[in-house]
Amino acid sequence: MKEKVTFNINKKENFSEWFSEIVKEAELADLRYNVKGFVVFRPWAVMVMEKMYDLFEKELQKKGHLPSWFPAVIPEENFKKEAQHVKGFIPQVFWITEASDTKLEQRLALRPTSETAIFPMYSLWIRSHKDLPLKIYQRAQVWRYETNATRPLIRSREFYWIEAHDCFSTKEGAESQVLEDISTTEEIMHKKLGIPFLPLKRPQWDKFPGAIYTIGSDSLMPDGKVIQQPSTHLLEQDFAKNFDIKFKDKDGKDKYIWQTCYGISISRIFASLIAIHGDNNGIIFPFEVAPIQVVIIPINFEKDKKILKKTQEIKKQLSIKYRVKIDDSDKSIGEKFYFWEMKGIPIRLEIGPKELKKNSIILFRRDNKNKKLIKIKLLEKEIEKNEIDLTKKLIEKADKEFKNNIIYIKNKDELKKIENKIARVNFCSIDKDGEKCAEIIEKQFLSTVRGIRQDIKEKPTGPCIICGKKANVVTYIAKSY
Amino acid sequence: MKEKVTFNINKKENFSEWFSEIVKEAELADLRYNVKGFVVFRPWAVMVMEKMYDLFEKELQKKGHLPSWFPAVIPEENFKKEAQHVKGFIPQVFWITEASDTKLEQRLALRPTSETAIFPMYSLWIRSHKDLPLKIYQRAQVWRYETNATRPLIRSREFYWIEAHDCFSTKEGAESQVLEDISTTEEIMHKKLGIPFLPLKRPQWDKFPGAIYTIGSDSLMPDGKVIQQPSTHLLEQDFAKNFDIKFKDKDGKDKYIWQTCYGISISRIFASLIAIHGDNNGIIFPFEVAPIQVVIIPINFEKDKKILKKTQEIKKQLSIKYRVKIDDSDKSIGEKFYFWEMKGIPIRLEIGPKELKKNSIILFRRDNKNKKLIKIKLLEKEIEKNEIDLTKKLIEKADKEFKNNIIYIKNKDELKKIENKIARVNFCSIDKDGEKCAEIIEKQFLSTVRGIRQDIKEKPTGPCIICGKKANVVTYIAKSY
Repeated sequence: MKEKVTFNINKKENFSEWFSEIVKEAELADLRYNVKGFVVFRPWAVMVMEKMYDLFEKELQKKGHLPSWFPAVIPEENFKKEAQHVKGFIPQVFWITEASDTKLEQRLALRPTSETAIFPMYSLWIRSHKDLPLKIYQRAQVWRYETNATRPLIRSREFYWIEAHDCFSTKEGAESQVLEDISTTEEIMHKKLGIPFLPLKRPQWDKFPGAIYTIGSDSLMPDGKVIQQPSTHLLEQDFAKNFDIKFKDKDGKDKYIWQTCYGISISRIFASLIAIHGDNNGIIFPFEVAPIQVVIIPINFEKDKKILKKTQEIKKQLSIKYRVKIDDSDKSIGEKFYFWEMKGIPIRLEIGPKELKKNSIILFRRDNKNKKLIKIKLLEKEIEKNEIDLTKKLIEKADKEFKNNIIYIKNKDELKKIENKIARVNFCSIDKDGEKCAEIIEKQFLSTVRGIRQDIKEKPTGPCIICGKKANVVTYIAKSY
Repeated sequence: MKEKVTFNINKKENFSEWFSEIVKEAELADLRYNVKGFVVFRPWAVMVMEKMYDLFEKELQKKGHLPSWFPAVIPEENFKKEAQHVKGFIPQVFWITEASDTKLEQRLALRPTSETAIFPMYSLWIRSHKDLPLKIYQRAQVWRYETNATRPLIRSREFYWIEAHDCFSTKEGAESQVLEDISTTEEIMHKKLGIPFLPLKRPQWDKFPGAIYTIGSDSLMPDGKVIQQPSTHLLEQDFAKNFDIKFKDKDGKDKYIWQTCYGISISRIFASLIAIHGDNNGIIFPFEVAPIQVVIIPINFEKDKKILKKTQEIKKQLSIKYRVKIDDSDKSIGEKFYFWEMKGIPIRLEIGPKELKKNSIILFRRDNKNKKLIKIKLLEKEIEKNEIDLTKKLIEKADKEFKNNIIYIKNKDELKKIENKIARVNFCSIDKDGEKCAEIIEKQFLSTVRGIRQDIKEKPTGPCIICGKKANVVTYIAKSY
């Protein structure tokens, strides 16, 4: 392990460098694995992502989902059953063609997503309206042969995700599932992890291959580019028809089911978490997902045994509720401070002879860098207060920045000026008709039309900023990862 | 979901049928996925296996391991660096050769185990004796192209496991890690899940490819065949030399590290769990890993609203500590009883007008089928007592059966008679010298030499049962999965 005394990179000005360096310095991931687009995730990242998995899985289970595990390989014949889906995914598939020294009779796709592995089973399992709704998710890895530039953690060829695949007897059932999925993104990604997003109905030309419509969640990276986070899709009955998934309804008739799917990339949300909350000195973790929540630094403890004894007492007491570490290594105090700040630990406690004499301890908060001397007997209450406040402040700060970066733009010329922001504009249409204007935006401004708000209704107040014709929607435009 | 009124198959006499049927009836897995050797795990199995993952991961972390995630694909050049390892694993590898419509420059192995993915990174990470010990594990899937008959859950081509890869500065460090790994198997698989095993040092001809020696854990299935559970391997320095993993020791010299690895197949332990504890009426789960621990069946509740209200009160109270379900469906009481017994729920509560009048409730225990009327106010205490006792009894029963099935055999002829048991015999040697005798056992008795006890020292009391020469070891012989 290298020991640097300081981590200090201006995140705003050099985000790309900041991100690469913090991934390396905090030992989040190692990018030197010798297959392009594949990354090794190290303990400091995995411990956080395991907690993120827990949060999402608990929320999904609370909302009636059950966990399953489906195979990672999909026979080519399954994969090709839904025409749009094939077209969308086949350029991204890794193929297994050999095993041992044998050529396989049929190629196997390494799953890029699991619809075509799961739906043949649904066709066997679903018989009656009593079997519905069927709500199943899996925690899994997926692999996609990205031809765009891969970006560590953000756009890799292997990612760690959750996918939920739900079945209903009515269209209304499926539609309300889409809303429930958005609320899951809100509950966990925004309210727990502090990552704000816009839930956007994607333009027709940008929906999930095989879906009727897609609601993506766009969050914003510090360099002004949006990144798609969990997205949910109304599949309606297209897949059901191709995979023959029918049920006998209450009226005795055989009907096709209505479906939705919902994908959550844990490794990509993790990238946003690091990027959004961090500052020039490194990571800042929300309290709940921090691998270590409280680090205790004993000061000048070599001469006075009572200090180390006291820190151990405090650790023991706090460990009932929190993940606590004592750093009694032989590094200098300055090194320890900088190191654990860089690593993102929410609360640091410092205690030396001076504090011990006063039965007190110094509490340092990573986010606002406030230091406060407090009585040891009040420590637990104080941590409780700060625990809630820290995450609240992180969310408020992220929300404010996000809001400040969404700018209403009235005409095409202004679009150039807002390089690193999300533009909110009047636009002709996100149906087929609007595709030409979207192509102009793509070519002239290297930006994409992200879609229209799902959470609120917005009315256009002027003509389409590109073609000047009547605007039917308000849409959001941004550069994206 | 089909509704059968009873599940009743004689497990002892028709184990194979019992196992296939319970996998289907309890909806543990679906074997109809259209790739040979690949299985869909359904919620009732996944919920248990997630808890098994938790138990093992917590134990590993307690013993100083940290979690990481390494890629699922391994370049052919990495894979071929250790000669023995290649020879052992290459017949089992699935190969990725294409992506999109491109032929890859180098084939990628879908990991059958991760040594060759992990060790190139260790070579980058380890510099000094201060970096050691390095103890890392990952929760992952592995894929092996088994050419032997695949058996659902027991021998599949995709399995869910944990692998730990540990590095030390001395041979003694590595050797004591092997012992620690065996203690982890004992703590979780035996003491928590009730699966007894023999820790056996494998014969030289049956060790992990690339290892100096292997300690496997053999547990016994009800049909008398042994099944290898977690195994731990002393790799010494062979891999370190091939992957150039060196450290600067305290004496300033560059040295190769000493390594161990430890593999735990969660899906295979799950198969043993179902097989060992189940009875003719279905599954019996140890309390800690049951997806639902207590099911409450209200009796004649349609006429008397107070009953359902009471069950809800009880559920709310118990849910603070336990996973509880009320079955107020319109199935008959008999159906409900049989169904939840088949599913393996440890404790069932029954309450109707008669019991309510006495402020009482009936507690039924799945393992011994005892019924007892108890006061509702004493319910929590009673469950606590039964929770501990049930798991204890399951372990005792399994231990007793296991012990009764290990038989000391004095001569070759007797070997034939003990068809469905483990034979304990005097044997010439588990080094090279003994391989010929082992081949005879394999041919004549279709059994394998499993190795010598690691936990106790056993002295032979007669000549080798095959060649009649001096026996140097006591070994165990059995048919195996």
